[in-house]
This record gives sequence, structure tokens and C-alpha cells, in this order.
Amino acid sequence: MEHEFEPTGYFNSFGSHEPVLTIASGDRVRTSTADAFGNGRDGEPVATRGNPLTGPFFVEGAEPGDVLVVRLESIVPNRDHGYTISSIAAHLVDADYTSELPAREVVTWSVDVEAGVATLSDEAATPREVQVALRPMLGCIGVAPAGGQAISTATSGPYGGNMDYREVEPGAVVMLPVFVPGALFFVGDGHAVQGEGEIVGTGIEISMDVAFSVELVKSSEVAGEVRWPRMETATHLIALGNARPLDQALQHATTELVRWLCAEHGYDTRGASHLLGQAGEYDIGNVFDPAYTVAAKISKAALGE
Amino acid sequence: MEHEFEPTGYFNSFGSHEPVLTIASGDRVRTSTADAFGNGRDGEPVATRGNPLTGPFFVEGAEPGDVLVVRLESIVPNRDHGYTISSIAAHLVDADYTSELPAREVVTWSVDVEAGVATLSDEAATPREVQVALRPMLGCIGVAPAGGQAISTATSGPYGGNMDYREVEPGAVVMLPVFVPGALFFVGDGHAVQGEGEIVGTGIEISMDVAFSVELVKSSEVAGEVRWPRMETATHLIALGNARPLDQALQHATTELVRWLCAEHGYDTRGASHLLGQAGEYDIGNVFDPAYTVAAKISKAALGE
Amino acid sequence: MEHEFEPTGYFNSFGSHEPVLTIASGDRVRTSTADAFGNGRDGEPVATRGNPLTGPFFVEGAEPGDVLVVRLESIVPNRDHGYTISSIAAHLVDADYTSELPAREVVTWSVDVEAGVATLSDEAATPREVQVALRPMLGCIGVAPAGGQAISTATSGPYGGNMDYREVEPGAVVMLPVFVPGALFFVGDGHAVQGEGEIVGTGIEISMDVAFSVELVKSSEVAGEVRWPRMETATHLIALGNARPLDQALQHATTELVRWLCAEHGYDTRGASHLLGQAGEYDIGNVFDPAYTVAAKISKAALGE
Amino acid sequence: MEHEFEPTGYFNSFGSHEPVLTIASGDRVRTSTADAFGNGRDGEPVATRGNPLTGPFFVEGAEPGDVLVVRLESIVPNRDHGYTISSIAAHLVDADYTSELPAREVVTWSVDVEAGVATLSDEAATPREVQVALRPMLGCIGVAPAGGQAISTATSGPYGGNMDYREVEPGAVVMLPVFVPGALFFVGDGHAVQGEGEIVGTGIEISMDVAFSVELVKSSEVAGEVRWPRMETATHLIALGNARPLDQALQHATTELVRWLCAEHGYDTRGASHLLGQAGEYDIGNVFDPAYTVAAKISKAALGE
Repeated sequence: MEHEFEPTGYFNSFGSHEPVLTIASGDRVRTSTADAFGNGRDGEPVATRGNPLTGPFFVEGAEPGDVLVVRLESIVPNRDHGYTISSIAAHLVDADYTSELPAREVVTWSVDVEAGVATLSDEAATPREVQVALRPMLGCIGVAPAGGQAISTATSGPYGGNMDYREVEPGAVVMLPVFVPGALFFVGDGHAVQGEGEIVGTGIEISMDVAFSVELVKSSEVAGEVRWPRMETATHLIALGNARPLDQALQHATTELVRWLCAEHGYDTRGASHLLGQAGEYDIGNVFDPAYTVAAKISKAALGE
Repeated sequence: MEHEFEPTGYFNSFGSHEPVLTIASGDRVRTSTADAFGNGRDGEPVATRGNPLTGPFFVEGAEPGDVLVVRLESIVPNRDHGYTISSIAAHLVDADYTSELPAREVVTWSVDVEAGVATLSDEAATPREVQVALRPMLGCIGVAPAGGQAISTATSGPYGGNMDYREVEPGAVVMLPVFVPGALFFVGDGHAVQGEGEIVGTGIEISMDVAFSVELVKSSEVAGEVRWPRMETATHLIALGNARPLDQALQHATTELVRWLCAEHGYDTRGASHLLGQAGEYDIGNVFDPAYTVAAKISKAALGE
Repeated sequence: MEHEFEPTGYFNSFGSHEPVLTIASGDRVRTSTADAFGNGRDGEPVATRGNPLTGPFFVEGAEPGDVLVVRLESIVPNRDHGYTISSIAAHLVDADYTSELPAREVVTWSVDVEAGVATLSDEAATPREVQVALRPMLGCIGVAPAGGQAISTATSGPYGGNMDYREVEPGAVVMLPVFVPGALFFVGDGHAVQGEGEIVGTGIEISMDVAFSVELVKSSEVAGEVRWPRMETATHLIALGNARPLDQALQHATTELVRWLCAEHGYDTRGASHLLGQAGEYDIGNVFDPAYTVAAKISKAALGE
Repeated sequence: MEHEFEPTGYFNSFGSHEPVLTIASGDRVRTSTADAFGNGRDGEPVATRGNPLTGPFFVEGAEPGDVLVVRLESIVPNRDHGYTISSIAAHLVDADYTSELPAREVVTWSVDVEAGVATLSDEAATPREVQVALRPMLGCIGVAPAGGQAISTATSGPYGGNMDYREVEPGAVVMLPVFVPGALFFVGDGHAVQGEGEIVGTGIEISMDVAFSVELVKSSEVAGEVRWPRMETATHLIALGNARPLDQALQHATTELVRWLCAEHGYDTRGASHLLGQAGEYDIGNVFDPAYTVAAKISKAALGE
């Protein structure tokens, strides 16, 4: 079934909130997201700032232990401007360099979706103009966490959350462990583009039109256990780990990718070590949020798949 | 001038050791490296294990504060087999998963330079055969550190060292700060290929034929200060940071890239924040050695260069 | 006013749950806590495992920005046995030593409150008997976090939480920032004693009789801002930081202590640096929970107070 | 035998330097150390700044695998003033607080050994005067590292080094693994007192008169293996770990203490977990140097020894 859902309210936490729509495995949803500062498609405030979420979407029949498979079909900025912060975060440079950093202010980029570029004119910066190619993505994607928790959209965990990972983009398939009945799926925090690491603390924050479809994999059909978000792109299998410090995020991601290869791709840990040791890859999602995000990846080419 | 240098001895530390050859800015050197276990082109022991280094090469006129620019012209495995370790290192998976890891044993890969592939047959692993594409690189590249230190080839620092970074490959230009007269340049630890992070603790360890040329940039011509190794590839500018934990390696690399953009590419820190915030990239060199390595990168395309 | 409150239900998250009792500034409460596994004074299950909390206590007039000052008057084990886990957590030893660790099993200690000792007889261990002195404390103490969040009692944050810090013991005064109306104060997770760091993941987990009194400091009377829990003991001022890794917990704690000295004790940051640089102290609360806890301390003697 | 040794030269690295004196197991040495800035007992420069070391002392018969046991008999400031830095290091506070920190300048304290106090008058600070009790200690103590390395006195490792740990004080016994023939023992970097963590980057840096005695334990008499420095004080057994981040230093220290309890005190890892889990302690040595230092401790009382 196809759903059109225009949000009238937003949540600032991933939690067991009242569902806004019930959908079924196989359904497709067209909706929209406000930007991280709470502004909608008209550039006016529609939500409380701090990554307001669209959702939750209740997936019929989803139970703890199942896996929710979300295919991101399109993510398109629905207005002509977005916001970033004007300085690399202080904790990402050497401590004795922090005094060289500029003020942290909001600046506004022009976003031209047709041309595929965003442009910033900033009198206070050298050079005065910066232009970057668009690569729309969602900073926030996830389900309600376990145990009745409601966790701020500032951070992330096994349930997904504010992972700020650039490959959460159109065409990607995101697999999320289900912790509560109905899964309670959320999206938000669109970025017209974002550098790896989200080192200024934002991508180009913008409202989005989003389309996705969902499939539910029942626990009985899940090989092994999905403990962290997984992704499949055109070229790679990806496991995500969310934690501080980076070392721990990398441990979670590496472990989840090994477990995946062992559960579903015909490897044991020795075979997975051989493969990942010589062909594995990593991306840094973000190093800004309370939990950092690391992606452990293996190309389908290297897998021979 | 062209030099052919066949090593007859090796060092296991980056230090102010007796030079093996004196070269001048503009010179080109053809030499070879033993593998990390100390084996040479015949597969027989020629050096003490633990990343034996070829060098040091004394660069005429090099003084502390200068920058040594090394162009890696070719790095070619000079035998038909290499070694890896059979397990992901225990500190790279979740602590409660370490018991699932296999034994850490040396295994031998067949390396076919013509075909560009390495193949492992391992009865103890599933699957029994793994094949990966070659991508030769040097794990160790650097100069003598400051203060009369001699530092094990296990680790790395501002002087370079055992960075185990995949983009230290043919075509790359590596820029190293000079700390002692003559710079005292070393190479070693060739990998037929290595996964990002070097998570088993090795690439495919193999002896190499190596060719490189050097240019010396005097301190008077250096804009700003080069505190960490920098690189230029066909597509990117790269700054390297070496430290534990990953967070600190990333701080060093990010700071060095910002400093570089400000000193030589027309940016101030606000402009660099705008650019790197939305177009910056990171690679993980290694997460195995005592100092980890992170690369902060910006594409020449994003720079408009 | 004096309150006797015997809990009939427990929460497993710090959140804006329905208050169990309304109290006023100056009131004293006598209540009890279940142990971390959910067992009460009779040793029988009374709550869901995972640090069930007693509370929340709604403090009349408390508003965001206020500070809740809690004096811990008594914390007394109310039964004769408690539980620990039989192994140091794997992430607290070198990764290559994890295979030497024993199984993680629950073992039962005899707790003699009169004699002030706990004794474990464990046939599987050498030596078979271990005896330690009691030092009762609360692992969990805190208020509801901001933003409608409900956060698992596994972890901690600016609101307090599962800090597992040994000095949260009788006689200590704990100062907590208030984030929601009524503050919503919780206690739980009593330990008959706990080693520094809580390296096996538990103290001797036991149910407790607890007495505390509260004072409310209105925001208008707060000098500066209280961002993290603070404590006062007979001998020290203490600021707590909760985060991973330890380095970040230490940053939070150090910053909070400096801010406190500057806001209320007549120091500027230079004077505080002189004092803390030569007389400051640290404790490690826990290195087991998702957020670690570090205490930055200064003795009243060193302060001349 | 008793030795009086007045240094005439100093080293700025722990390395296999020419011995200044040969001593035997059982010998006692009276010597002196320059301060960290290179100033001697007259307050004048006598050495290159950066923790100049007195030594190395060649211990007859010491071989790799042995353990050098050093009893610190006295450590007494031999002049009336010392130096500190005027600000907590930027990496030890929250990144957004670094701009609040004062300048990092050298300030001079009056040191009154008779009265046991140090006093700073600093017009630029509030309050203008700070006084702290003396507690003399050595920041640097160690032997030559393995593999012909020479490692800056800025940092530390398995060989000891610049650990900046307050309990390296008179009465303490320090046990160091031997890596090279003769052990090559060094001391330096005296502090009239130092706060835990050395958070300004210095104690009160002062020249010292030092007396110590050595005993050599041959490898054949060593139970198990000593991988990290160990200490015995009047009240505690202590194992030291040196690394970044703090988490890793703590892993090393914890592992070494468990190994020690298992090798020499009648524990297995399960028994050691029971004891350390409920009675273990930690100190933070330093969080300033390239390698941080953590001490894992158990009281002799808790051991029943």
C-alpha cells in the first residue's frame, strides 16, 4: 500500500510515542521531515529544535527480535536554503588549537536542487564563497529503543538514531533491530550534504521530501541476531556501531560485520578475518554527537557477490 | 642523480642511525625492502623481525624545520608469497566477542603480481579460499625523530613511522617534517595489499622493490609549519595524525589539514570549517599499532584545484 | 516533615514517571531499595532486574535550573546476603588477557551488618574464601533528565544515574541539577561495598534501608550553573563527570570542579589551576557502565575551609 | 656498598646510554636530580630542559628478564623554590571551556622544606596566594627500554619513564622489568608536590637530593613475568600501566595487578576478581604526558598480608 503522510507534530526523542500512522510490511510511505532546527518546507518553524522526528510509524506485526528493513527510495530537499555552523567543533582539533577556531554561528547556504550544488556567501570567511555538490541524506533514522526508554535525538545507539552517516542516502537499505511492538520507525534531520564526520556539528540542515518502503523480517527468519543497524548499498554491506570513543564505535561495527558474514555469508571468524583484514573498509559517520558512528564495510566485489 | 641501493643491513627503529647512502634533493633511489618478519626477496631471513627498515638515506642540506618531499614512484612485490595473521586483533571487537576469534597464526598467501591478485588457501578457515586484489603500499615511511630518539618501528609519530596507511602507494607524494640534519629517511614494511585499519595486524607482508625521488623544501620556503606528515595524491590533499586513541589521531589530522589549507590554499579557519564541514573526508590508516593513524582529506575537486 | 515510604513499584529508567510521593524542601524520607537484580529485603523478586529505582519523589516547587541538595543520612543493608559477578569485565584487561578470565556468574556473599564484613565462599575460586569490609553506598541516585527523556538505569549523565561511585554513602551530600518540575528524585542499586571502578560490574548487590533529606536551592540562589552532580563529604568537595571514555568523564568532572571553585569559593581559573594542579585528587567511580564516572576532588583542608 | 654520585651530565631520553656508575645488587646510591626545566640545586641551568635524567646506573649482572627492585630511601628538595605552569591543560577540560583557561606561564613557588609547605604569590591569580603541603616525589623513574630504543623523557612505557605518579615517594619500592644488560636505571623530574593527574603539566618542579638502594631479582626467581612497573608501599601493592587513553592505561594496570596476585599471592583470576571487584583501588598518575599513567592497587589489609 502507498501512504502519503504529512506530519503535524514531531518528537525530539526516539521513544515509545503514540504512532502517527500504521503501515504494513511491503508498504511505501511518502512523507517529509523538518530540518534539525525545527523549520519546515516554508522555512518557518514547525517543530522544536534539536532534530525533530517524523513518525513514529507503527509496523503491523513487528515484534522484538524482528528486523525492520527500510529501503530509502528518495530524499529530496524541499526548499532552497539550509543551515550549517561556522566552525569545526573544538573537540575535533588539538586542544592547543581551539583558540584559532572561529565563532560557532549559524550560516545560510543557497541550495539548488536542480543544479545539484549548495553555495555559501559568507563575508566573514576567506574565501567568501564556498560551493559544494549536493548529496542528500538523513541524519536520523531509527526505531524506539528497548525498555520504555525515550532517548534524545542528539544521540544514537543499537536502535539507530542520530547517526549522521552519509550513506543513509537514496538507494540505501537500512536494517534495524526491533525492540518494541510495531517497531516505531522514525526519520528526520535531513542534510543536503554533509562532510564525513559531521565535524562542524551539522550537514547543510534542510527540510526534505522522503519516500521509503518497509519490509519486516520476522525473528524466525533472521540468521543469528542483528544487534546494530546494518545497511546494504549498491556496492557494499555495512554494519554500524554507535558509541564514544571512536575506538568503541569501531569495535561494535567490526563485530557486527563479522557476525553478519558468519551468519549469512558463509564465513567463520577465521575466514572473515582473512577477508576483512585485507579488503575491509571503514567510514566515519559522525564524531560530533554524544555517540560517534563508525561504519565497517565490505564490498560486494570482495565478497564475490 | 639516480641511485641503486641494495641494503645489506636494516634498522628496527626510526632513529639517528649511521646513513647508508647520501642523496641530494632531486635524486631518485631504487632500492628494496624486507618484509615485516625480516624476510627478503628470496623468502629467507635477511633482517631482524619487526618491520626492518631500509635506510637511513641522508639528504644533503636537510636541516630541522625543512620538509622532505618524497614521491613514491613504484612499489612492486619482488617475490610470490606474503604473510598475514589469521585473526582480527582482540581489541578491535567487542570485549565479549573475543572468545569467538580464531587463533593468531601466520598464514601464507600466493601473490601473483602479473594477475594482480593474492590468494590464500587455508584448510582451517571457511571458506577455504580467499582472493583479494593487490594494491601494494608501504607500512613504514619516515625520518629520524627529534631529540636523539630511536623509536621502535612498531609505532609512529610526527616523523611518520609505521603508519600502515593504504594510500602510501605508488604515485603518492609524502611530505615529512625534518627533525635532524640529513633528515635520515627510511622505508619498509611493504604490503601487497592491506585492509583499512590493518585489523589483523598485518597487510600481506612481502618484500618489495621500491623507487622514490626526493625534493627538499627549505624552512624558509615552507608556509607555516608542517607538524605531521602530509600527502598529495592524484585526487586529494591528506594530513596524517598518529596517536591513540583514534579520537586523538583524528584531532591531529584535522588540525594539520586546517593549518595546511590556511597556510597554503587561501583559507582562514572559518572558510576551512565551511569546506571541510561539508566536503571533508577521513580514512583510518591503522587501528592496530601502538599509535593509530587517521587521514584527514579534501579532494582537489572540492578545493577547485 | 518525615515520610515513611515503602515502595510498591519500581522504575528501570530515570524519566518523567508518575511520582510516588510528594515532598517539600526540608523533608526527610525513610524508604528502601531493591537490589540491582530486583530482589527485596526478603531476598525475593519484587522488581524487574537492571537497577530498579525507588521513586520518583516529587519535590514541591522544584523547577528546571534549581538544584536539589540530598543529604544521605543512612544506607543500611536490610538482609544478610548480596550478589556479585565472578569475573573482572573483559574490557578492563588487556585484550590478549581476556581468555584468562573466569566465567561471569552470579555468586552470593554473606553480609553481616553487625560485624561490618561480607564473606564469600566459592569452591571454584582460589582462595576459596574472600572477606571484605562493608561500606554501604548507592549505585543509582539522580533526577529525571531533560527533554522528556527516559534513560535506562544502566547508565548515567548530567542528571546523575547509575554512577556507581563509592562516596555516595552515608554522610554525603549530593547536589543535582533539576531538569523537570518537581525534580523527580530516584534512588536504587545499593552496594554493601564496591571496589573502585566496579570492575566486575557489580558491588555486593543488596537491598537497603535508606534515609535522606532534601533541600531545594532555587535557581536565583545558585551561583553560576550546576551542570553535573556535585557532592560534599566530611573532607572534600567533589564534582562528578559521567561519559565514555574515561578521558571525557575526567574532562567533565574537572571542568565542573573549576566552575564550582570560581562561582562559590573565591577562585578564578588561574587560582583554581594553581590549587588543583598541586592539590587536586581524582576517584574513578565506575569503568563498567555505558557511561563511566570520574570524581574530581579537592579537600576542604587544601581549600582552607 | 654506598655510592655518592654527583651528576655532571644528564640525558633527555630513556635509552642505552653510556653508564655513569656501575653498582651492584644491595648497593645504596646518594645522588641528585636537576629539575624538569634543567636547573640544579643553585637554581641555575645544568641540563637541557625536558626532564633531564640522572644516570644511567649500570647494575652488575642485570639481564633482560630480571627485575630491578629500587627502594626510594629519601627524596628531598635541595633548594628553596620550584616552578609550575599557571593553567590546567586544555585537553583536560571540556572543549567549550578551553577559552576560559588562563595563559600557560611558568610561575615560581617558595618551597620551605622545614615547614613542609610551598607557597605561591601570583598577582595575576585570585586568590593571590596559594599554599600547599609538600609531598616530594620523582616524576621520572625507569630503565632503558628494549630494542635499542631511546625514548623521550616526556613519556613512559613498560620500562617506567615519566609516569608522574605521586606515590613514587620516599619509602616506596619500585620494581622494574629489565630489558638490557645492566638495566640502566635513571631518575629525575622531582616534584616538591604534585596534584593527582598532574593536570597543569607540572608538579612543583624542583631539584632533589635522592637516595635509593637496589636489589636485583634474577629471572629464575621471578614468579610469572613482570610486564609493567610494580610498587610496594607501606600499605599497598600497586601495578602501573602507561598508555593513552586512560582506559588503556587502566587495562594495563589492572591486568598486571591480576597477574601479580596470581603469580605470587595465591590467587587465581576468579579469586582476584572477587577481591579486586570489591576492594580494589585506582590512582591516576598523570593525564598530561603522551602516555597517561594509572595505578591499580590493593591494600595489604585487604590481602590479609
